Amino acid sequence: MELMNSPGTRDESGKRIIVKDDVLRRIISIFRRYGFAHLDTPVIERFDVLSAKYAGGSEILKETFKLRDQGKRELCLRYDLTVPLARFIGMHKEIKMPFKRYQFGPVFRDGPVKLGRYREFWQCDADIVGAGSMAADAELLSMAQDVFKSLNIDASIRVNNRKLLNGIIRNYGVKEDDIEFVILTLDKIKKIGEESVMELLSERIGRDKSEGIMRLVSDGSGWEETLNRVENEIGDKEGIEGINELRTLRRLLDEFGVTTAVLDISLARGLSYYTGTVFEAFLKRGRIKSSIAAGGRYDRMIGGYLSSKEEIKAAGISFGIDVLVDTLQEREEERDDIDVMVIPIGDSALGIKAASEFRGKGLKTLMDIMGRGPGKNLSYCNSRGIRFAVLIGEKEKSRGVIKLRDLKDGSEQELGVEEAIKTIKSAIKN
Amino acid sequence: MELMNSPGTRDESGKRIIVKDDVLRRIISIFRRYGFAHLDTPVIERFDVLSAKYAGGSEILKETFKLRDQGKRELCLRYDLTVPLARFIGMHKEIKMPFKRYQFGPVFRDGPVKLGRYREFWQCDADIVGAGSMAADAELLSMAQDVFKSLNIDASIRVNNRKLLNGIIRNYGVKEDDIEFVILTLDKIKKIGEESVMELLSERIGRDKSEGIMRLVSDGSGWEETLNRVENEIGDKEGIEGINELRTLRRLLDEFGVTTAVLDISLARGLSYYTGTVFEAFLKRGRIKSSIAAGGRYDRMIGGYLSSKEEIKAAGISFGIDVLVDTLQEREEERDDIDVMVIPIGDSALGIKAASEFRGKGLKTLMDIMGRGPGKNLSYCNSRGIRFAVLIGEKEKSRGVIKLRDLKDGSEQELGVEEAIKTIKSAIKN
Repeated sequence: MELMNSPGTRDESGKRIIVKDDVLRRIISIFRRYGFAHLDTPVIERFDVLSAKYAGGSEILKETFKLRDQGKRELCLRYDLTVPLARFIGMHKEIKMPFKRYQFGPVFRDGPVKLGRYREFWQCDADIVGAGSMAADAELLSMAQDVFKSLNIDASIRVNNRKLLNGIIRNYGVKEDDIEFVILTLDKIKKIGEESVMELLSERIGRDKSEGIMRLVSDGSGWEETLNRVENEIGDKEGIEGINELRTLRRLLDEFGVTTAVLDISLARGLSYYTGTVFEAFLKRGRIKSSIAAGGRYDRMIGGYLSSKEEIKAAGISFGIDVLVDTLQEREEERDDIDVMVIPIGDSALGIKAASEFRGKGLKTLMDIMGRGPGKNLSYCNSRGIRFAVLIGEKEKSRGVIKLRDLKDGSEQELGVEEAIKTIKSAIKN
Repeated sequence: MELMNSPGTRDESGKRIIVKDDVLRRIISIFRRYGFAHLDTPVIERFDVLSAKYAGGSEILKETFKLRDQGKRELCLRYDLTVPLARFIGMHKEIKMPFKRYQFGPVFRDGPVKLGRYREFWQCDADIVGAGSMAADAELLSMAQDVFKSLNIDASIRVNNRKLLNGIIRNYGVKEDDIEFVILTLDKIKKIGEESVMELLSERIGRDKSEGIMRLVSDGSGWEETLNRVENEIGDKEGIEGINELRTLRRLLDEFGVTTAVLDISLARGLSYYTGTVFEAFLKRGRIKSSIAAGGRYDRMIGGYLSSKEEIKAAGISFGIDVLVDTLQEREEERDDIDVMVIPIGDSALGIKAASEFRGKGLKTLMDIMGRGPGKNLSYCNSRGIRFAVLIGEKEKSRGVIKLRDLKDGSEQELGVEEAIKTIKSAIKN
């Protein structure tokens, strides 16, 4: 047997997981400030739930891992965190709206494995269920800006509205049946370029219509200017509704102090369930071009899961944990998390009391449990980048002191344990 | 389609997940103080890895969820976090020993579903790989005591040693092939009682041997007394080694200040891979009788995964997250996590600036996004147990103040936002 991971999965350790834990901690802390509560749903779901008409659609089902339990039930692994949320809402009629929940964890897709694409990868979502006002959408975008600020990431958020897109497309006489095709094709502008999108559109709806749509959505001016100009060109009622939603959103974003949101009326997003606001965040600089967060409003999906079929308005945001970790990992040095190593000289029991005191004060403390000599232990500290070593022999113990060595400059001083804790803590802070 | 969870899985929300997050946060914080680093392995593993000779054994394989990817590879869902650790060690020859890692997350077993038994449940493990000294075992037990203290749980830890058990059993002339059977049967004393265990043992090894073993392991006195007495009765070399390990462990536990560990030489643990120290922690009081943490030393398992087959010494502890959450949930009141709700009177934009300031200062803040009137919002606060409401109309905004209402006593005062933050923060602390 060869020891290896299942294809498209990986172990996370060392610097990567230190950065990942930090990213998750910061995002979750901001979710909580915005009043989102934690929900955790299982990895395993029933296949009929995830394959329902209102769920992720046929493309994603092809990539869904299926399994059976001993009772021969058809089960599968969740491919996102949104469909389980819809199931949860459907099962709990008693929930008070608006319901603001966050969830994070692995999701699974049995797709082709290539660079940066995994079969088991992490999502981190926040959704507001039961609120239709643009204040909800604005909260999500404000939250995204807070997250990027907390991560010290320079990002910009492109914003659009599906109603406006529908209106623009309809304005050029595109048949209702082709609207979704046009939207999903527009979503590819960034990936395959404007020319290729023109070609794809022209094949289906003709060159004139395609040129009109492409000209209108390629507008690069500010919010008000763009919206005014589009408003003058289109008469479609849904389109005007989209324009008004974007204007309201813009006013609320100003109140929130969101300065990083730009209007991009070519933005479409690749999922068919969006019904209003859509957005995607990107890094302003750097090698990584894929989106680092994305989301939007989906007012019809959750209702599909209810027996009543009533409309349940909802909007959500999903942060790309893997791409955020990739970004932040690049600019960080190799990190180790240990504050101090306690090295007994002679009997290993000599170090235990000091180690316990360090730990009691919250210092991340290693203690030699290998019975190695001081020299070996000090070079172990060096190899792991541990800055402080504490040496304790019979002599030190009887006098109630320890030797604190700072491996950064090789200095050594005799101190009481309390003093040593102070010294280490103040050094860590700097 | 009926909306439901896959059998043996559940959603976690509300008070339960607040308690669970708190339990995990406290345990992980203590792991880190003891110098353990985070490792996260995938949920999906290759079937040949989890079914290897040195892994969990045939019983657990019967309960392993199997699946295939599109490449028809045989995969499965992990049934514990220890075998993935062994795989990781085997794949990373460069790892410096000792390797101290913690991991937490869901594991999967396709067994019978009954009260308190789930098919998807959480484990939280810390393991020390590459260290054979009793200092490692003592660290794990000290860590367990710290965790229980941090959780304000009154627990006692039963400790034993497999070498000692082997020695005792061999002392009564039991054949080598029957030793494992006797150990796994002794493990059932707590579950089925001494008499039933006697019967099971007598059937296989005869009444005399069974009585001798049961008499010896039923000793209830202190560490030294018990060990001295057993030492006088048995001559088996491995047994004496076990006694010496327990004596060393006891001395180290004293240095660590571990006062909650009791020797119980009937303790066996149900897994066959243990080679030395074994332990199990229980609540001293209360309804819950199952163990809340358990572990021990397994010096031969990881080596089985290496091509070199060299012995890799290891010891670990696993905390029962679900049972800990059950315990703590019982004694907590219903909790909501929101510190304050901002209620605009009139235009919803009125509340945004105040909400942003509250959030900026770390307060968990809801803002009305439903455009409901103040009365409805206040009764929403009441129904969720949110103590503070902030009301802002045009009048308040123009004067730069807010109305802070304390729903606990109905009092209301006009304050600046900074003052309101101070008032809320000091109320939360108490």
